[in-house]
Amino acid sequence: MVDVQEAELRELLERVAAGELAPAAAATAWMAKERKAPFEDLGFARVDHHRRLRQGAPEVILAQGKTCEQVAAIAAAVARESPNLLVTRADAAAAAAVQKVLPEAGYHAEARVVTVRREPPVNGRGRVLVVAAGTSDLPVAEEAAITAEMFGGPVDRLYDCGVAGLHRLLAEIETLQRAQVVIVAAGMEGALPSVVGGLVSSPVIAVPTSVGYGASFGGLAALLGMLNSCSANVVTVNIDNGFVAGFVAASINRK
Amino acid sequence: MVDVQEAELRELLERVAAGELAPAAAATAWMAKERKAPFEDLGFARVDHHRRLRQGAPEVILAQGKTCEQVAAIAAAVARESPNLLVTRADAAAAAAVQKVLPEAGYHAEARVVTVRREPPVNGRGRVLVVAAGTSDLPVAEEAAITAEMFGGPVDRLYDCGVAGLHRLLAEIETLQRAQVVIVAAGMEGALPSVVGGLVSSPVIAVPTSVGYGASFGGLAALLGMLNSCSANVVTVNIDNGFVAGFVAASINRK
Amino acid sequence: MVDVQEAELRELLERVAAGELAPAAAATAWMAKERKAPFEDLGFARVDHHRRLRQGAPEVILAQGKTCEQVAAIAAAVARESPNLLVTRADAAAAAAVQKVLPEAGYHAEARVVTVRREPPVNGRGRVLVVAAGTSDLPVAEEAAITAEMFGGPVDRLYDCGVAGLHRLLAEIETLQRAQVVIVAAGMEGALPSVVGGLVSSPVIAVPTSVGYGASFGGLAALLGMLNSCSANVVTVNIDNGFVAGFVAASINRK
Amino acid sequence: MVDVQEAELRELLERVAAGELAPAAAATAWMAKERKAPFEDLGFARVDHHRRLRQGAPEVILAQGKTCEQVAAIAAAVARESPNLLVTRADAAAAAAVQKVLPEAGYHAEARVVTVRREPPVNGRGRVLVVAAGTSDLPVAEEAAITAEMFGGPVDRLYDCGVAGLHRLLAEIETLQRAQVVIVAAGMEGALPSVVGGLVSSPVIAVPTSVGYGASFGGLAALLGMLNSCSANVVTVNIDNGFVAGFVAASINRK
Amino acid sequence: MVDVQEAELRELLERVAAGELAPAAAATAWMAKERKAPFEDLGFARVDHHRRLRQGAPEVILAQGKTCEQVAAIAAAVARESPNLLVTRADAAAAAAVQKVLPEAGYHAEARVVTVRREPPVNGRGRVLVVAAGTSDLPVAEEAAITAEMFGGPVDRLYDCGVAGLHRLLAEIETLQRAQVVIVAAGMEGALPSVVGGLVSSPVIAVPTSVGYGASFGGLAALLGMLNSCSANVVTVNIDNGFVAGFVAASINRK
Amino acid sequence: MVDVQEAELRELLERVAAGELAPAAAATAWMAKERKAPFEDLGFARVDHHRRLRQGAPEVILAQGKTCEQVAAIAAAVARESPNLLVTRADAAAAAAVQKVLPEAGYHAEARVVTVRREPPVNGRGRVLVVAAGTSDLPVAEEAAITAEMFGGPVDRLYDCGVAGLHRLLAEIETLQRAQVVIVAAGMEGALPSVVGGLVSSPVIAVPTSVGYGASFGGLAALLGMLNSCSANVVTVNIDNGFVAGFVAASINRK
Amino acid sequence: MVDVQEAELRELLERVAAGELAPAAAATAWMAKERKAPFEDLGFARVDHHRRLRQGAPEVILAQGKTCEQVAAIAAAVARESPNLLVTRADAAAAAAVQKVLPEAGYHAEARVVTVRREPPVNGRGRVLVVAAGTSDLPVAEEAAITAEMFGGPVDRLYDCGVAGLHRLLAEIETLQRAQVVIVAAGMEGALPSVVGGLVSSPVIAVPTSVGYGASFGGLAALLGMLNSCSANVVTVNIDNGFVAGFVAASINRK
Amino acid sequence: MVDVQEAELRELLERVAAGELAPAAAATAWMAKERKAPFEDLGFARVDHHRRLRQGAPEVILAQGKTCEQVAAIAAAVARESPNLLVTRADAAAAAAVQKVLPEAGYHAEARVVTVRREPPVNGRGRVLVVAAGTSDLPVAEEAAITAEMFGGPVDRLYDCGVAGLHRLLAEIETLQRAQVVIVAAGMEGALPSVVGGLVSSPVIAVPTSVGYGASFGGLAALLGMLNSCSANVVTVNIDNGFVAGFVAASINRK
Repeated sequence: MVDVQEAELRELLERVAAGELAPAAAATAWMAKERKAPFEDLGFARVDHHRRLRQGAPEVILAQGKTCEQVAAIAAAVARESPNLLVTRADAAAAAAVQKVLPEAGYHAEARVVTVRREPPVNGRGRVLVVAAGTSDLPVAEEAAITAEMFGGPVDRLYDCGVAGLHRLLAEIETLQRAQVVIVAAGMEGALPSVVGGLVSSPVIAVPTSVGYGASFGGLAALLGMLNSCSANVVTVNIDNGFVAGFVAASINRK
Repeated sequence: MVDVQEAELRELLERVAAGELAPAAAATAWMAKERKAPFEDLGFARVDHHRRLRQGAPEVILAQGKTCEQVAAIAAAVARESPNLLVTRADAAAAAAVQKVLPEAGYHAEARVVTVRREPPVNGRGRVLVVAAGTSDLPVAEEAAITAEMFGGPVDRLYDCGVAGLHRLLAEIETLQRAQVVIVAAGMEGALPSVVGGLVSSPVIAVPTSVGYGASFGGLAALLGMLNSCSANVVTVNIDNGFVAGFVAASINRK
Repeated sequence: MVDVQEAELRELLERVAAGELAPAAAATAWMAKERKAPFEDLGFARVDHHRRLRQGAPEVILAQGKTCEQVAAIAAAVARESPNLLVTRADAAAAAAVQKVLPEAGYHAEARVVTVRREPPVNGRGRVLVVAAGTSDLPVAEEAAITAEMFGGPVDRLYDCGVAGLHRLLAEIETLQRAQVVIVAAGMEGALPSVVGGLVSSPVIAVPTSVGYGASFGGLAALLGMLNSCSANVVTVNIDNGFVAGFVAASINRK
Repeated sequence: MVDVQEAELRELLERVAAGELAPAAAATAWMAKERKAPFEDLGFARVDHHRRLRQGAPEVILAQGKTCEQVAAIAAAVARESPNLLVTRADAAAAAAVQKVLPEAGYHAEARVVTVRREPPVNGRGRVLVVAAGTSDLPVAEEAAITAEMFGGPVDRLYDCGVAGLHRLLAEIETLQRAQVVIVAAGMEGALPSVVGGLVSSPVIAVPTSVGYGASFGGLAALLGMLNSCSANVVTVNIDNGFVAGFVAASINRK
Repeated sequence: MVDVQEAELRELLERVAAGELAPAAAATAWMAKERKAPFEDLGFARVDHHRRLRQGAPEVILAQGKTCEQVAAIAAAVARESPNLLVTRADAAAAAAVQKVLPEAGYHAEARVVTVRREPPVNGRGRVLVVAAGTSDLPVAEEAAITAEMFGGPVDRLYDCGVAGLHRLLAEIETLQRAQVVIVAAGMEGALPSVVGGLVSSPVIAVPTSVGYGASFGGLAALLGMLNSCSANVVTVNIDNGFVAGFVAASINRK
Repeated sequence: MVDVQEAELRELLERVAAGELAPAAAATAWMAKERKAPFEDLGFARVDHHRRLRQGAPEVILAQGKTCEQVAAIAAAVARESPNLLVTRADAAAAAAVQKVLPEAGYHAEARVVTVRREPPVNGRGRVLVVAAGTSDLPVAEEAAITAEMFGGPVDRLYDCGVAGLHRLLAEIETLQRAQVVIVAAGMEGALPSVVGGLVSSPVIAVPTSVGYGASFGGLAALLGMLNSCSANVVTVNIDNGFVAGFVAASINRK
Repeated sequence: MVDVQEAELRELLERVAAGELAPAAAATAWMAKERKAPFEDLGFARVDHHRRLRQGAPEVILAQGKTCEQVAAIAAAVARESPNLLVTRADAAAAAAVQKVLPEAGYHAEARVVTVRREPPVNGRGRVLVVAAGTSDLPVAEEAAITAEMFGGPVDRLYDCGVAGLHRLLAEIETLQRAQVVIVAAGMEGALPSVVGGLVSSPVIAVPTSVGYGASFGGLAALLGMLNSCSANVVTVNIDNGFVAGFVAASINRK
Repeated sequence: MVDVQEAELRELLERVAAGELAPAAAATAWMAKERKAPFEDLGFARVDHHRRLRQGAPEVILAQGKTCEQVAAIAAAVARESPNLLVTRADAAAAAAVQKVLPEAGYHAEARVVTVRREPPVNGRGRVLVVAAGTSDLPVAEEAAITAEMFGGPVDRLYDCGVAGLHRLLAEIETLQRAQVVIVAAGMEGALPSVVGGLVSSPVIAVPTSVGYGASFGGLAALLGMLNSCSANVVTVNIDNGFVAGFVAASINRK
């Protein structure tokens, strides 16, 4: 990023040295350029077209909390600059609004995710593995898996492998140990990431889910369990945040 | 469990010693067998058929958080291997879905429980007693009672015996002292398990319920009260978790 | 209070009507008087000498958080205007500092309370009863009892009557039912006020104590339990706040 | 209560002494009587007819958490033994169900309270005052007021007197100081009880309400504020629990 | 305020001195006047007409928790004494009810705010700037902006400037540094006020919003973040409380 | 208990029928007897000698929160009626005070437990197993083990078997499956009880410990994890409460 | 800030236009300059000398959490560039360490504040008022007052004016209404800012203190109370954070 | 791991096929071997020598909560099998105890870390960057840095780069963008990881520290802030857990 900037400044200076541009005009132009932001202002949103350069991925849209109109408008703006697009936490109405402006968009209802894939996804060096403790954790696990597939797959899936029936997990030891990075989604007591962490040498990204009731307090029990994991290779993301887990897993796999 | 495994290995070795099986083929077969899990993979769920051997009871299905289709499919799979079946936290739709695939299933609407009983329940050596503090605690108390009946009854019930009218409880002192194990479901301040604990020599399984409002914080007040009980024989389960209370009570009664 | 004010204004007006006082001077005098506060400013404290009139009791000094010098100076100021004095949460050093300026002051070490009683305490119409669940609750119970004795006793005491041994409480049913108001101090699960509440027709003032460990969270479990009491005659004060319990009990007993 | 029991025992003994009754039969009869509880078992509820003797008031029914059928059945049972009746937290459906079995029942929709008053309410020695901080606190304040009127009024009301406009409260200083006991309902920061407590010599029963948003956390902010009141005469009840406030205020006023 | 009172008292005293008024009658009149509160009692609300004098702004109506009838009646009462009017947290029904009695009222649906502006708003010495981290924070940001415009604008707006794309904020450095006071609304981690605080010398009023999910706990994460800001010029208001932020910003700008 | 009472009453009645006792004297005697509590009042404590009958175990003394003098006096009183004695949470000073009055008392410093064993402990039908996740959990595990040995052993121990190295646990599968009841002490994320629960058919009593830091919040993370265990046979006790775990395990083993 | 930058760029460009500087060298120089940060790197700290320009005040040092050596070294670095200096939360040892390198530094022990004032403080247009609810709140109040005096006083103080004795506050109505901005420090229930807020038209900065016990939870009760204030002009800072309150008050007063 | 096992089984089978070993003896031997755990039982600890194979790193010892003797004994056991060793959260006494048995051990007092490095550390493909927000965060940051250096460095450090002085961070943009993975340690509001996350394309591991006071609640505010980060590449570890952050960063860098 910085190199591009310095090259542009040098070009400007050379035009000044060549007398093609007056110093005052050049100063004004450069300051204006510095201040000009590589984003698009929609009034209610500033679409960050610069993110793809800065972070290796386009801006991802969190649909929750936005009106359908806002989601669709932001999606259209992102899609003008980026071949691929991801909208998370999209209900059916938001998905339909996006599909109206981007008919090629696909909707994954269980994962509440809208995707546009006009370019093939970038795969990483190895494989990402998504493990889910129970059937109820699937929406979060799928959000993680689809995100990882988009930004740095390929992705394997192991679902309903909770610690109460450990043999279901141990049966898949080879899949576990093959992965470059493992995502583990679990609700209730959230013990699965610790157990998985003890079986593999890869980083484990733990995703607490809000599955459970009573003293699960909406996923707090699982979150605290994961943060306090006795396995040294476990990091944690927000409750139900499959997206960040998938995004970071892809980023590790791409490295 | 282990003995079965050793016997099988010996049989295999004898076939190798007898030249009936090549060592390489035997090694591959054994490792495959070891890794082959006694579960049935439905894609979204891995039904743990091994649990009945390991824990003395078939897998119980928690309907909450699953789609009706998922609940029915898992129920059908369990019922193929196990004569009896328990589905908890099932609303009317989930119950109907199960009854469609298992017409013999019964639905206990207040307890939100579906049961299939193709074999008579196993009774324990003594009696399980379920005590409820108030009328609003009945759904949780019934979930506990039905579970205990299925896995190790018989079960007595004492309902609406809260501490504000202690004579209602003291009138039943004989029933209390006769039980092998007592389950006490209470919301609000959750004081009843402490009082019951002081009157009996059996273990008391306290179930905090989410009955109450304001600073009951969805059952948290009752939960904390029970965890801090000054009676030495009180253990606690999750808020509204009548199922675990009933399951453990049955397990104690069966011992 | 208001009547006194009106009488004084009338007197002033009569002097104006009588020509003894010019209207402007009278206006200035009255406004100054209105604004003049019946308190004594020590710089770091404003001793509220008016409280005895307004609330029927002199200002009580909370020693905690103040330096010994501050406590002694405030005590001296209060004692200039009030025959009796109460200092709560006083450690030995604070007590000694008060006794230096008020040699007649007594120190109740267990209750951490300093008292000066130059006038006999005012007794109420009936009796205040202080019940403590366990031996560890005695400091709080005694703070309540001494406070109630000072502002509206006499006081009876029943200590170590926790709900795990209910017969210890039931043996005292007559003492319980005789009281005009009952204070119940309990830590851990805080169940005792509910049980006492169900046995008496008087108001019950529940005092959660910080006795306990783990999930008692410094008295939070007991506090929540008491706030959610299923007995309709239970009100609650802050954790370990024997003083307010004793003060309100005395106030009810004096009525 | 005890004296009645002793008289009955003496009568029995005299009949034994007189040879009218065999010792064994007398022993059996007495033990049975001791164990016979003065309650009515409806299956899902044990109506405590003894409470009126023990606590000076009939059992009050908390409708929340019960089915309409349960509420109506309990109400009918209470009303068979008690002339007056109070049902709290009753929505319109519960009220209608009660009115079907007890046509004389009145419904106070704002306070969510059903009352049957076949005997005139018992008034106390003085007056109960109910103060509400804001318009939104009225449902809770009215629950308190109607309860106090039923068990020991009469009741005065001062509504919308929050501390942000202190003159609205100071204008009513005479009403405040006249009351035997003051109930203060307030949400948000719950500061009003402290201010009222500083102005009166009576006990103040603080009722935190769930009015507010964000960091009011459903009334927790107000609850904590009231528990930590710097006024020595403030006791607290559960969030939104107008009923207990009214019941205790009546009990104090009746003393 | 006090001076007005003293002048009125002097006038009264002069009438007494002049013999136009008997002292007793004057005393009664003055005390009545003192006690007469400058508010209007609607039964369920005491409209504080005095607030405009005391605080430089009329009473603002919080619609949430009040019935439509109550909101409309209070609005009508305020509007009788004040040319301008603000109703916050008004849903469409409440807005319609106000517009029925005050047809000139405007409704800002996104901000849930009703305004009547019969007098031009008072502008301050400088400008108020409202910054919002994301599109979902707009309702709160707009509540703040409209409030500030009414009580002390003018107001600039910078929306969707979250810290994940810092250049969007840095591009507006001049707007930031020009403001007399900056309001920053942000949900999720609430980091934006700290960053803004480090860039400006003005006070920053941080408004945590409930935007987010999981461990945002309804805005608690953002609230705690803002309270712990490492920038020395950041103060905080309640979650989603755009109104107070706008009111205080206007008050600072008017100074 | 009841039968004894009825027999005594019959005897009394027969003496009345025989004219050996006047009815009035008999009535007074019986009522006095009923009210006479089987406890010993030490002023600061009421030692519950009745507990051994009622609960099958003598009163256990919690030393924490009591003075050394109080602990020693209560211990002496219990030891007068009971051959065995258990004091928990005793620091060295408390232990020394007990040993002064009961020289035969032993002190287990790591477990902070004082024991007197003048009678051989009662063993149960099977074995109790105590599992600890890490070395730091030993104090709590030992408190549980010593308690269980006293009230219903024998006890096996498996220490440092945390889930991060699962093979350490799986190596002991036979010991696990042999136990009548398993106690599992674990801090940090508290995952071990769920894993153990999935391997055994016995009840599992989970003891969260305060081992950990940061978001373990003094054992809260482990407590919540255990309450939300996905294994159906897990019940929970208070943080660090090895005593209750051991007591209940013994009670189950004795059944 | 920006204008300075543009002027410097123009100068550079003019030198390039004049041929005094080659374009490449100029580009390198400018980029280096842009990246060169106006801070001083001490290894463990980066002293922000730029802050005085950006925020109108030098960097203030928070001593807590730093070693004495670190505090002294940072203080010396700041004092090399800035005439005045403020160190907060400094215990006696930290203060002594600073005084060793800066002998002119003064230590305010109660407020735990070290100050160097080599230039007279900048006063604002009006007065800052600091109000404290009780004597125990003085350390926090003094931290606020000294901070405000340094950055924009003068400052008035009103201490021990809690709401339990309202007349102590009302007596100072003129001082309250004269202030440009009011800081209110209060612990326990934290009600004072709401009451003050209702009496003045200025912004009120509420500082919750950790004064209190039990359910004050280290100042949480006061914090929540202040965040939920029903007075529209109240903003809040962190618990015990007198510094930010004083800094923002000064900033408002300077505007 | 599995392949080794299969090879060993094949060898055994070949010996059986060759008649060198009887089937029964072979079965017993294999089962024993399967059950024999690759750990060393010290009584109070089971040293997991297998971890180096399974996870690519030897067992790391958490000293906190263990006695000095236990730490030293475990350290000696680990060092018998592994050339390198890491002990975290070691105070001076624990460090000295380790150095007594392992004189080559080094102690990093600020980071509370003991290291033995008998083999050169394994470096990764890129660089790990550790950023700390303030001087007080250094102990945690150093724990992370030393851990990462041991398991997969090299490591760069950027300390005291908090968001209140953003230019201190922006000056290091090249160092930030060069790293394979970035660790960010921050207390108070914990905003720094979000800002860093927006500037880099690498994964960011956020470490909340307990630096702060009041509503930082021991690091909870920072923890929640990081979990709710709006930057998509941020994962979080436990409060003050520099070790896990360093371990996972090394693991990512090694991939």
